[in-house]
Amino acid sequence: MSGLDEILGDDAWISAMCTVEGALAMACADAGLIDRTDAEEVRRTCETVSIDPVSLGAEAAEAGNPVLGVVHRIRAATSAPPSAVHRGATSQDIIDNAMSLLLRSAARASHEALASAALAGADLAHAHRSTPMAARTLGQQALPTSFGALVATWARPLAQADGLIADAVASLPVQYGGAAGTMAAVAPHGPAVATALARRLDLAATDAVWHTDRIPFLRVASAFAAAAGAVNKCATDIVAMSATELGEVSEIKPGGSSAMPHKRNPVAAIAARADSRRAPGLLATMAANTDHEFARAAGPWHAEWPTLIELARVTIGATRRLSDSLSGLQVHTDAMAHNLDATGGALMAERVVGALSPHTRDAREIVTSACAARTPLDTDERILAHLSADEIRRLLDPSGYLGHAPDLADAAVRDIRAHFATEEES
Amino acid sequence: MSGLDEILGDDAWISAMCTVEGALAMACADAGLIDRTDAEEVRRTCETVSIDPVSLGAEAAEAGNPVLGVVHRIRAATSAPPSAVHRGATSQDIIDNAMSLLLRSAARASHEALASAALAGADLAHAHRSTPMAARTLGQQALPTSFGALVATWARPLAQADGLIADAVASLPVQYGGAAGTMAAVAPHGPAVATALARRLDLAATDAVWHTDRIPFLRVASAFAAAAGAVNKCATDIVAMSATELGEVSEIKPGGSSAMPHKRNPVAAIAARADSRRAPGLLATMAANTDHEFARAAGPWHAEWPTLIELARVTIGATRRLSDSLSGLQVHTDAMAHNLDATGGALMAERVVGALSPHTRDAREIVTSACAARTPLDTDERILAHLSADEIRRLLDPSGYLGHAPDLADAAVRDIRAHFATEEES
Amino acid sequence: MSGLDEILGDDAWISAMCTVEGALAMACADAGLIDRTDAEEVRRTCETVSIDPVSLGAEAAEAGNPVLGVVHRIRAATSAPPSAVHRGATSQDIIDNAMSLLLRSAARASHEALASAALAGADLAHAHRSTPMAARTLGQQALPTSFGALVATWARPLAQADGLIADAVASLPVQYGGAAGTMAAVAPHGPAVATALARRLDLAATDAVWHTDRIPFLRVASAFAAAAGAVNKCATDIVAMSATELGEVSEIKPGGSSAMPHKRNPVAAIAARADSRRAPGLLATMAANTDHEFARAAGPWHAEWPTLIELARVTIGATRRLSDSLSGLQVHTDAMAHNLDATGGALMAERVVGALSPHTRDAREIVTSACAARTPLDTDERILAHLSADEIRRLLDPSGYLGHAPDLADAAVRDIRAHFATEEES
Amino acid sequence: MSGLDEILGDDAWISAMCTVEGALAMACADAGLIDRTDAEEVRRTCETVSIDPVSLGAEAAEAGNPVLGVVHRIRAATSAPPSAVHRGATSQDIIDNAMSLLLRSAARASHEALASAALAGADLAHAHRSTPMAARTLGQQALPTSFGALVATWARPLAQADGLIADAVASLPVQYGGAAGTMAAVAPHGPAVATALARRLDLAATDAVWHTDRIPFLRVASAFAAAAGAVNKCATDIVAMSATELGEVSEIKPGGSSAMPHKRNPVAAIAARADSRRAPGLLATMAANTDHEFARAAGPWHAEWPTLIELARVTIGATRRLSDSLSGLQVHTDAMAHNLDATGGALMAERVVGALSPHTRDAREIVTSACAARTPLDTDERILAHLSADEIRRLLDPSGYLGHAPDLADAAVRDIRAHFATEEES
Repeated sequence: MSGLDEILGDDAWISAMCTVEGALAMACADAGLIDRTDAEEVRRTCETVSIDPVSLGAEAAEAGNPVLGVVHRIRAATSAPPSAVHRGATSQDIIDNAMSLLLRSAARASHEALASAALAGADLAHAHRSTPMAARTLGQQALPTSFGALVATWARPLAQADGLIADAVASLPVQYGGAAGTMAAVAPHGPAVATALARRLDLAATDAVWHTDRIPFLRVASAFAAAAGAVNKCATDIVAMSATELGEVSEIKPGGSSAMPHKRNPVAAIAARADSRRAPGLLATMAANTDHEFARAAGPWHAEWPTLIELARVTIGATRRLSDSLSGLQVHTDAMAHNLDATGGALMAERVVGALSPHTRDAREIVTSACAARTPLDTDERILAHLSADEIRRLLDPSGYLGHAPDLADAAVRDIRAHFATEEES
Repeated sequence: MSGLDEILGDDAWISAMCTVEGALAMACADAGLIDRTDAEEVRRTCETVSIDPVSLGAEAAEAGNPVLGVVHRIRAATSAPPSAVHRGATSQDIIDNAMSLLLRSAARASHEALASAALAGADLAHAHRSTPMAARTLGQQALPTSFGALVATWARPLAQADGLIADAVASLPVQYGGAAGTMAAVAPHGPAVATALARRLDLAATDAVWHTDRIPFLRVASAFAAAAGAVNKCATDIVAMSATELGEVSEIKPGGSSAMPHKRNPVAAIAARADSRRAPGLLATMAANTDHEFARAAGPWHAEWPTLIELARVTIGATRRLSDSLSGLQVHTDAMAHNLDATGGALMAERVVGALSPHTRDAREIVTSACAARTPLDTDERILAHLSADEIRRLLDPSGYLGHAPDLADAAVRDIRAHFATEEES
Repeated sequence: MSGLDEILGDDAWISAMCTVEGALAMACADAGLIDRTDAEEVRRTCETVSIDPVSLGAEAAEAGNPVLGVVHRIRAATSAPPSAVHRGATSQDIIDNAMSLLLRSAARASHEALASAALAGADLAHAHRSTPMAARTLGQQALPTSFGALVATWARPLAQADGLIADAVASLPVQYGGAAGTMAAVAPHGPAVATALARRLDLAATDAVWHTDRIPFLRVASAFAAAAGAVNKCATDIVAMSATELGEVSEIKPGGSSAMPHKRNPVAAIAARADSRRAPGLLATMAANTDHEFARAAGPWHAEWPTLIELARVTIGATRRLSDSLSGLQVHTDAMAHNLDATGGALMAERVVGALSPHTRDAREIVTSACAARTPLDTDERILAHLSADEIRRLLDPSGYLGHAPDLADAAVRDIRAHFATEEES
Repeated sequence: MSGLDEILGDDAWISAMCTVEGALAMACADAGLIDRTDAEEVRRTCETVSIDPVSLGAEAAEAGNPVLGVVHRIRAATSAPPSAVHRGATSQDIIDNAMSLLLRSAARASHEALASAALAGADLAHAHRSTPMAARTLGQQALPTSFGALVATWARPLAQADGLIADAVASLPVQYGGAAGTMAAVAPHGPAVATALARRLDLAATDAVWHTDRIPFLRVASAFAAAAGAVNKCATDIVAMSATELGEVSEIKPGGSSAMPHKRNPVAAIAARADSRRAPGLLATMAANTDHEFARAAGPWHAEWPTLIELARVTIGATRRLSDSLSGLQVHTDAMAHNLDATGGALMAERVVGALSPHTRDAREIVTSACAARTPLDTDERILAHLSADEIRRLLDPSGYLGHAPDLADAAVRDIRAHFATEEES
């Protein structure tokens, strides 16, 4: 599992920019614009040139972006002529493509983490497809469900978000427009260079220059935020189920407290919540910085870089911590059964309403008022008028009222394993 | 063009909930759960029942959501038995499906507005494929481009956002889970009812109950925000180009000022900016409210309703105003030409660098210092050492340096017209 | 309790604009610019003129803002000369001042709701200053506290937010700058008019024209968001404590379920969460729309209006619902006591560590490992080596370990009552 | 000028936590809880102990927060007994106080940057109090103003935001509540320790434990966001005025382009925009993470740390870059004069309306239609019916219609200098 600094840190940025410059030289050779030997020399230089992030950063602050400095260093380090480097390109061509490369790495890391979390969830869903527990709605016990069915609702969105991220990243188009987005410096060879560059960077080909169209990156940001939201939901449930009074699950490696030796905090789920809760604000920043003026934005463009990278980081970080939480999550089925008993049958009231309904239009009112009066339903006269006490008690047995919970767990297990199996092989 | 209150207001909400209840009764009949005659009677009632938003709203505040009140009114109005109404459903089933119906209406309205704006843009891009103007980057003139190429960058993202909205809405799955998301009240007929309901509401079928998975709605929200971002970019450029000093475009129906009779404010573009700038915060609210606890959220779910509807409204509103702005936008090609002259040739410096580069590694430095000293490039000795004055002057003619601008305009026109033509026919 | 439409709806907007125009006429008379009789006639007209929101709204869409239409109607309705109306003002002068008037109404409504909620909290904190319950940290029981101390942490921030709102609204400066923010149309009387207008509208006087300085409104927005955050925290706790398994509180008017007759949903707290969770995104919109270009913004200014009003609405709405929840909240002290027993003493582990620490550096390790092994602490040999079993059992009694919880409750009660008493009288 | 890593980076965090632990030991001695010699030994250890951020970070990920690791290292490094370290405290006590110390450093850095930018603005406002330029509203020229008056609207909000930050930081209360917020471990000495700790850390004393009340930090966040908003407005104007066609200002150290040698990008203002535009989303995250459950939040608390620090960083970074832009900003008064001529007098139309109004109720209509027809106002018959051509021409001279612009500049200069002078001395 790669560290996030490794794939999204300053060195990764610089390396990606060099990769783009190298591929551009080759693409220009493909299009017949520069000598292939020169292009290969540039690409070699781009692969080997060593660039110090600190000095580059200082120059970038002066110049407004880091590309001038990168180009300068590549030109200084290569024996190829200057015209073979950065041909027909503008800073944004390099940075946008480099961002796409970083996002591809981020998507890969996110995919691994989502797969790990979702498949751990699938295992839990499978193992507990029929394990009864209380379903809780609006904070209160509602009806029985199975733990497997609950986990299905955790794991499915993880796979769904993975699909959105994959689609968004696979759609990222190559960027090549030159200074004003007209490819004027290389006309009439612009489209040929762009197409070759797309092929060499494995980005989507396009007929457009999208310097000021930020939907491709916003789409990736939205997909990451969807993943973060899915992680947050799941981690929120784990924290709640780990509560002392519920005690339905516990993490395998809980954290301690500086003051309370007995605490067993679900630290992985807590960290997953903490990270994932930072995503919505970052997404808002991405959405608000789509107003790129004219042919290149004076600020909104620069605001994207740290924001999108940070959004990828918190999403991947949150997902990894969720995966830590889910892998080896201890499930306390006794506590689930105990909690299911908490209402002394009232939980099954809906089922009694259902059985009573064919007999009277007042079914709901009758059961509601018995619940309100805390009368055991198998002793309520108005219910006994229509159903036997035995029948009422049978209706009140939770394990017989899981409905499609096991089926829902099964379907999720099947779909999640299929989703990630397909992805693994491709 | 339908008013937004009409398709997204309180009455539309109520009507959509009734449609869902009617379709549910029919779906239950399809699954053999209730009598078809009863189901048809329920559907008829749902089509005709009159529900007052004000009294329903008051009850909804008490109950926590409006569905109890709707069901009560339908049951009171129908001759079918109570068990034929709202069978096996929970409030969220009704509300989520009703939201999907509203979003489909919103997507239709948004599609119309995006089509109108994008096609007006395509017409402009076609008419001005070669109209020279200054491309501006980071707030400054960079190189020549054509107005058509600029408009291409406005209109393409509108079509792209339209595609995202259409995909997101077409993917909305049917919701049918019952009180605890297990379909227990109708087991073993749950999947059959869900499938029939999907067919009757024309929603996507699904094996899942997604009460707490908000990605489907977040995806729609993200797509609307993408559209709003695309509108904002375009409107921002129109406002800037309408500035007194640029004067490159003007709206056909500008607004006046309460104090200044000479003002010709581009009010449509201004309104488009104002509306679209409200989208990112609303998107953040949607993304932050994905943390639905257990089987139904106590708050986050309710927070979605006004937010997603408002996000649709501001997006459609902004797009309609942009369409107003673009339809009949007056293009002042003389002002474009005048502005292109503003730098006295410095704008073409890149081209001179390109021509000089084969002769000297110092090409960029030479031209930069001439520009800095405001020396006319055709009189600079270091340039004249390599290029003739005539050659320099030819290089400095903007109309000869549009690069692929006309091609980019053409490709956009073709793609946009194709996108909306296909959509129209489908 | 006034309805929010009444104080923040379209009619309230129009009425506030008319109030500002009337006060402006009087201020111009104060400054000697217009005839006092004319001014009084204008003011009378402004108090009585009837303006239809629908037709005004249609005109506003054309003109870009509603002020032109308001001025036109006032001039048409008054016998005073046109020059006595809207003298030296620009649309933004009217709208900004009208917004300040609306915010003052909103602050009043918010103050009432916060007072109601906080004082209900103070009553609870007083009544339960020593009622033992489990303090929960990171989702788990930590140590005993009192319910009163918990309620103190709910109620204090409500008073604190009220103070921030009051300060922010009291600081709102008068706006009077004219078309370009130079007061040129009334020079040299600009400052005199502005000062008189401030006095007549009871706004803060200022030496500045702040058309493009949005900090005054952002500050109000931030204060409302702080209140919303305080409400959200409190409502979140109430929902959690109302959970079936905790059962520590219940609302006096819980909501029912369309499917489950036994459900007793804390609908007021749920609604409070739902409303308050919409505040952060709206605050982001306010913060993002501070970039007002030059002397008047083309979009960001207009985006403020619905956003700030909606932020006020969700905050007041959430606070009112919280007040509903807290007023008459039923406190189940037996459930609190029962839950406090859930860990069988482990909850008191910190106290045992404290008592053990003078005897050994390993105190924490010893207790932690006993807890981990689920050994009752009064039977653990390594602890018994230093403390008697009786001493250990005494240490494990929660009611003797409330610390300063009752004091914290008392201090909060005192401060909250003082805060709202002072406010009431002023 | 200190680097932001230095005051807000990992080492600064660790150092602040150690400072808090040292002060806590001394406060406990002040309250008579521990031996003064032990306390001094702990404080010395805290001042000198060397803690590696990397290993601490790894432990923090396991434990859920870094405090356990810090306490462990201090205890290991000191000759004082363990009970003299971290007495009665919980992790959040240490982290919240450490955050307050970091925010105080951040406020100091922010104050320096805001002072530098605002005072540079004051110098410009003073120098150009009467320099005529076009005021622009809704993107269009409106009336004349002075450059000094415009700069006044840039600089005032900077001082205002500085005041909000200073107030918010000065109000930060000491945090000391212990494991459950009851100060049970040190009762009855809790308040005495808290008061002593407040004094030693120079934080505000309080009767409350505010572990779950995030308004104090949200208030600081809001103040930083206000500063960022003020910076954004100013930088946005500078970028617009630097546009090729306006050319009214230029930065003293503009940035170059990788492709266009003639570009003179206002890189400092662009960077200021880029940084400041990241603030609203971060503020939303702060506002959304106020829902701290029970006595300590499982996620929202942790989400605050990086968010608030990043918000401080982008605000200070943006302000520094704005200061770079404003210091030595080159003002092109000739371009301002040239642009003021662009409308050929229509800009002065309001003044003609004013002069015409005493003569006819149709004043506005007459002038508006002349402007629309582009008739020079001194040749329009309906105007000449009431005013002489000379009078009209006098009315059309912009330099005579600056209104209170110079006064507004003067007042701002006076207030800004006073604000920062007072602050400097305090």
